[in-house]
Amino acid sequence: MALLFLSTPERAAVWGPIFAGAGEDMIVGEEAVSDPAAVTHILCWVPPEDLKRYPNLEAVISAGAGVDQMPPMPEGVALVRTIAPGIEEMVRDWVVMATLMLHRDMPIYLHQANRGQWSAHAVPRTRGVRVGIMGIGRIGRLVAWTLGTMGFEVSGWSRSGQPVEGVAVYGEADLDAFLAQAEILVCLLPLTEDTRAILSAKLFEKLPRGARLVHAGRGAQLDMDALKSALDRGQLASAMLDVTNPEPLPEDHWAWHDPRIVITPHVAASTDHAEGARHALEVIRTGRNREELPGRIDQQRGY
Amino acid sequence: MALLFLSTPERAAVWGPIFAGAGEDMIVGEEAVSDPAAVTHILCWVPPEDLKRYPNLEAVISAGAGVDQMPPMPEGVALVRTIAPGIEEMVRDWVVMATLMLHRDMPIYLHQANRGQWSAHAVPRTRGVRVGIMGIGRIGRLVAWTLGTMGFEVSGWSRSGQPVEGVAVYGEADLDAFLAQAEILVCLLPLTEDTRAILSAKLFEKLPRGARLVHAGRGAQLDMDALKSALDRGQLASAMLDVTNPEPLPEDHWAWHDPRIVITPHVAASTDHAEGARHALEVIRTGRNREELPGRIDQQRGY
Repeated sequence: MALLFLSTPERAAVWGPIFAGAGEDMIVGEEAVSDPAAVTHILCWVPPEDLKRYPNLEAVISAGAGVDQMPPMPEGVALVRTIAPGIEEMVRDWVVMATLMLHRDMPIYLHQANRGQWSAHAVPRTRGVRVGIMGIGRIGRLVAWTLGTMGFEVSGWSRSGQPVEGVAVYGEADLDAFLAQAEILVCLLPLTEDTRAILSAKLFEKLPRGARLVHAGRGAQLDMDALKSALDRGQLASAMLDVTNPEPLPEDHWAWHDPRIVITPHVAASTDHAEGARHALEVIRTGRNREELPGRIDQQRGY
Repeated sequence: MALLFLSTPERAAVWGPIFAGAGEDMIVGEEAVSDPAAVTHILCWVPPEDLKRYPNLEAVISAGAGVDQMPPMPEGVALVRTIAPGIEEMVRDWVVMATLMLHRDMPIYLHQANRGQWSAHAVPRTRGVRVGIMGIGRIGRLVAWTLGTMGFEVSGWSRSGQPVEGVAVYGEADLDAFLAQAEILVCLLPLTEDTRAILSAKLFEKLPRGARLVHAGRGAQLDMDALKSALDRGQLASAMLDVTNPEPLPEDHWAWHDPRIVITPHVAASTDHAEGARHALEVIRTGRNREELPGRIDQQRGY
C-alpha cells in the first residue's frame, strides 16, 4: 500500500516526514512509481488521466476542501476531500470579517478614504440583522455560532434542512422564504450541477431590497453580470467576494473598480500541510479497518 | 428637578417622549430655561461656560462614551458618561472587524484590488496569534471574549491590573512585558493626561517586529508621524484607525493614501438615542435615591 503524492514540493516536504513517521509509504510523482499495483491512494488537486493504470486504487484525496475540479471516479474508487480544522476556522474568520465589513459599510468608507473624505454615516447595530447562510455544514455552523454570539439573527439553508442548534434552518423547498428574510446572504455552498450559477438575477430579486452578499463558495455559482445589475438597481447594496467568475479575475475586469464590491483572491482558506497529511493518514487507516472514510464524497450528490 | 437638554434636534425628538412618558421634566436649550434653579441635570457634549448659573446642578451627562472633551466640573457636580449596551457592542463589532482585517492582510488585498491584481498570500490561522488590548474595561472584555472564541490569544493591560476571566491582564507597571508579546495591539483607552500621545515611537519599538495596530481610543493618543516611521521601518506592518490626529483628518493628509493604513471616520459607535435617554433617566433616579450614578467618572482619574 502506498500513497501517490501529486502536489507541490513545499507540501511534499511536510508530508514526507509525517508519512515516514507513521510508517506509511509515500511516492512523490508518477515517474517514481515502479509498481503501479502498490498505489492504493492518490493525493492530488486534479488526478492523472489514466487512473486505470493503478489496479488497486482505493481512494483519491483532493488536496482542498472542494472536489468540483475532480472528474468522475472509476467504479470502486472513493473520492475524499481534505478535512482540516484549520480550513474551517480560516473560512469562518474570513466570513465573519466579510459580514462585519458589509454590515458596517466598509465599501463606502474605503471608497471615501480613497478620496480623502471624512464623512460618517449612521452606525448600525447587529441585533436583529438577519444573516442567511446557504450551506450550513461544518463551516456554516462555525460561522453561525460566532455571528450569533455577536447579536446577528442567523438562519441557514440546506438541501437536507437538518436542524442546527440556535439556527433557523430552511430546507430545499423553502429557498424563497429563506431568501426573503436574508439581509446579508452568505454563500458557502459546494459547487455541484444544482448550485452552478445559483447566485443569479432571479435569486437576487428574492432578497430583501438593499441586501448584501458574502460569497465564499465557488466562482461558477455567481453570475457577475446579474450581480452588477442588482447593485445598479439598488436591489443589492454591496458584496464581498473571495471567489469570482472567471477566476482569477482579469486585471481589466469591471468588478475590481466597482466601489460596492470588495474582492479577495480566493484566500478564505488554505490547507495547512501537516493537517492535510494527518487527514490522509486517517483516510488510509479507516480504509484499512473498513470504517467510514473522513471527508468521503457522495459522488451522486457531489459533496 | 429638570434635565437641561443641549444636543441635536434629532436626539431631542427621541428623548422628549421618553422623558414625558417617565414623568420627568426636560428643557430643550438654555434660552428655554425660565428658572435656572430647577435645572438639576445637563445633557451635553460640551457644557455651557457658566455652569454656576445653575445653583442646584447635580450632574453633567456626556452625550457620548468619552468625557475627554469636558472641562473640570464645579465642586459638587458629578460628571457622567453615557452607558449604553449598544455603544459597547458597536465598538466590539468594529474592533473584531478591524482585528480580522489586519490579521488577514486586508490592507494588502485592498491595495492589490485597486490595481486589479489577483495574487494570494499565505493564509494565517488565528490560533496562537496574540492580541493585546490596552484598556480592558467593559468594551475591552467584550472584544476579548469574541476574539478568544475565534482562537486568538488575548491579553489586556489596565492601570488596575484587575483580573478578567480568560484574559492575561498586565498591570500598569508591566506595560513593557505586555507590549513585547502583543502581535496585534488594540487601543481602547480613554483619553487622559496619562494616555495623551501614548501611541508613540517609543511604544511602537516595544512591540514585536511586524506588529499591527487597531486604534479605537482617541485621536490625541496617537503620534501619526511615529506611526508612519514605524511602518516605514517594518516595525509595524499595518494599522486600522477609527480615530486620527488631527480629527477629522484633512483631505490631503498622507495617511489616507498610505496602503498600510485603513481609516474610518470615527464610526466605531454612536449612541442610540433611546438608550441614551434611558440611561439619563437612570442617572436621575439613582441620584434621587442617593445610589451610585451609572457611568460616573472619577474626575481625578479621568475615566
